[in-house]
Amino acid sequence: MARNAFYAQSGGVTAVINASAAGVIETARKHKKHIGKVYAGRNGILGALTEDLIDTSRESAANIRALMSTPGGAFGSARYKLKGVEKGGHEYERLIEVFRAHDIGYFFYNGGNDSADTCLKVSRISETLGYPIVAVHVPKTVDNDLPITDTCPGFGSVAKYVATSMMEAVLDVESMARTSTKVFILEVMGRHAGWITAATGLASRRAGEGPHILLFPEVPWNEEAFLARVDETVKKYGYCAIGASEGLQDASGRFLSESGSKDAFGHAQLGGVAPMLANLVQSKLRLKQHWAVADYLQRAARHIASKADLDQSYAVGKAAVELAVKGMNSVMPTIVRTSSRPYRWKIGVAKLSDVANVEKKMPRDFITPDGFHITQKCRNYLQPLIAGEAFPPFEGGLPKYVRLKNVPVRKKTGEYRP
Amino acid sequence: MARNAFYAQSGGVTAVINASAAGVIETARKHKKHIGKVYAGRNGILGALTEDLIDTSRESAANIRALMSTPGGAFGSARYKLKGVEKGGHEYERLIEVFRAHDIGYFFYNGGNDSADTCLKVSRISETLGYPIVAVHVPKTVDNDLPITDTCPGFGSVAKYVATSMMEAVLDVESMARTSTKVFILEVMGRHAGWITAATGLASRRAGEGPHILLFPEVPWNEEAFLARVDETVKKYGYCAIGASEGLQDASGRFLSESGSKDAFGHAQLGGVAPMLANLVQSKLRLKQHWAVADYLQRAARHIASKADLDQSYAVGKAAVELAVKGMNSVMPTIVRTSSRPYRWKIGVAKLSDVANVEKKMPRDFITPDGFHITQKCRNYLQPLIAGEAFPPFEGGLPKYVRLKNVPVRKKTGEYRP
Repeated sequence: MARNAFYAQSGGVTAVINASAAGVIETARKHKKHIGKVYAGRNGILGALTEDLIDTSRESAANIRALMSTPGGAFGSARYKLKGVEKGGHEYERLIEVFRAHDIGYFFYNGGNDSADTCLKVSRISETLGYPIVAVHVPKTVDNDLPITDTCPGFGSVAKYVATSMMEAVLDVESMARTSTKVFILEVMGRHAGWITAATGLASRRAGEGPHILLFPEVPWNEEAFLARVDETVKKYGYCAIGASEGLQDASGRFLSESGSKDAFGHAQLGGVAPMLANLVQSKLRLKQHWAVADYLQRAARHIASKADLDQSYAVGKAAVELAVKGMNSVMPTIVRTSSRPYRWKIGVAKLSDVANVEKKMPRDFITPDGFHITQKCRNYLQPLIAGEAFPPFEGGLPKYVRLKNVPVRKKTGEYRP
Repeated sequence: MARNAFYAQSGGVTAVINASAAGVIETARKHKKHIGKVYAGRNGILGALTEDLIDTSRESAANIRALMSTPGGAFGSARYKLKGVEKGGHEYERLIEVFRAHDIGYFFYNGGNDSADTCLKVSRISETLGYPIVAVHVPKTVDNDLPITDTCPGFGSVAKYVATSMMEAVLDVESMARTSTKVFILEVMGRHAGWITAATGLASRRAGEGPHILLFPEVPWNEEAFLARVDETVKKYGYCAIGASEGLQDASGRFLSESGSKDAFGHAQLGGVAPMLANLVQSKLRLKQHWAVADYLQRAARHIASKADLDQSYAVGKAAVELAVKGMNSVMPTIVRTSSRPYRWKIGVAKLSDVANVEKKMPRDFITPDGFHITQKCRNYLQPLIAGEAFPPFEGGLPKYVRLKNVPVRKKTGEYRP
């Protein structure tokens, strides 16, 4: 007998997370023997807690297809960590109440590290709380820091965006450097892992071409070495372009730029490494500088998404449903690289218990010995991930992004305040 | 008898300034009766002063064509204001020395406001210093602040980039706002004119859709009104997206964010309005915020250039040569809008004396009465300028941008230090 499915987007959204949603929904529609309706949580898991469910069966096939070219989270996402019984909360019990009311037997959770842990806990509900459910995690994170999978859906598109942006900015700075800006700094995302910073390095393909310096969170900050390298680079090439991670930290692990506020998971909210570095360059080296902070622009840039990333984002959504209808609980589809040149990949499966709360940092041999750039090995890894273009349709000069109707499902349980 | 031409890029480069270079060079190649070789100045006008000329005839037709899809300044640009005799300098005399040595009879100067003034002065050399030359200004500035012309080549592409980026960031913030960032600020360029800020407003096409607030340099900064509007917007729509000009200033004309350093023209170097606003929002309203500073990314983003802008950039380069071979001195080709719907334009001609040092700000009726958004009249103006896509070719996941050989012309005069 078919049971309904619950799908939720969790954590920071990406340019292609909706492609995973399309993968889940389109594939579920092909498995009517197992899956009835797909209900999406409005604002992620909060939608389940507050019984604010969206009936995706009310969306046309064309609109679901249009999710392929629409960034952000079409159903709303959330940074929200479920409170377990041990913390005095009863949120898992509440989930079961809602799932039972709507006959939900499948749980698809589309997120990163923290979400994998939530999904793992939900997958154990049948054991721990006696409610039968199959939970599959759909990987997504621009940070590229999930283990086991070769890459994380969402990362390839950010990588393509930051590499393209850096390449363009470098052409700008290079052509102006004689009389104007000598040092340019682009700050990119990456709290603990330097994958996005590494991707800016793809813009440098021959000697002297920027970016000349990459600052990874994996390499402890060293002001003296940094300033010496900037000075040397400007003297040698006339300018210096820098890709810097927001998560830059000193040897003691203290972030260079803590704004003081923390997110729902208790992580420090970062931002502002670029202006800090720019000030340093200006005051210590007396070099004219400019800086950019890409912030959300980088993870929302569907207009320059990677085709490889888009395909993989759809594929993990599709695979999640296929695994679930086979009854595989507590797993996550992964990307398995079978060849780099030519690039070939297939879908694999990881146990969620091996994924949750494990953070994949850059291998040391992806970073040059001096700590300031990426190695050829890293390029070989990154290159295929940004391959191919998948421009969205345009209308009136702007990308044509879909907005779903997001029709709510009639509530069956009482009010609940998370 | 054919004489040679000098072409230089001046001031901040754009995503499409090289398309103007292509227009000049390709058109000159078709007028061999009048124009011999086109020599480009390496690093703009400095290339003329130091006799560092580039022989563009050494570049293949394919490479010149590839300039159409390459951002930055292919020959190098410069922020450099020529010193006239009145300032004790002899730079105009030096120009004549170099022009004479290389039989240069045409001067094409590709720049904005300050450059128009330089070009005007060069155009008067025949009168003032007795050297026969025809000088034509090729308009270019992302600031869109040149008078007479309907728009400035370079602006449409920045407009398309910032509108697209804002639209994408809005989808991101909107989907996360319930549990995360409530206020997002995108800082864009525009020292004194709010044209680029206005363009971010194109992303908002229905009630409640961000950006909700635009901060123009034309509207004096009012902290209280700003905070009240942010608060109101978050309460009403759950989030607030803001497009802010780097040139935001108070009623006395003081920039909110002066970094203290000045450029070669004596203008204050700006940057950092977004983090300042974000801090204000955080401390006064206690709302979680994020901010982005697009900086050079916006004016180098050839990957999302406007087709209309690209076409116009080429057209002004072409027209400049056609005007010059007709002997029209001291002029600038302009864009004349003949219809908005459907969009139609043609090339016109302005006298340089009417252009130089005149700054076109946003008309007051392009800004809503409350000062926080653009009017329908402004949308009607902006809309056609971002129309059409002109993606560059891609290779290995990144745009394929050309690097010219830039072969130097043999020097004929003695050394000169500007």
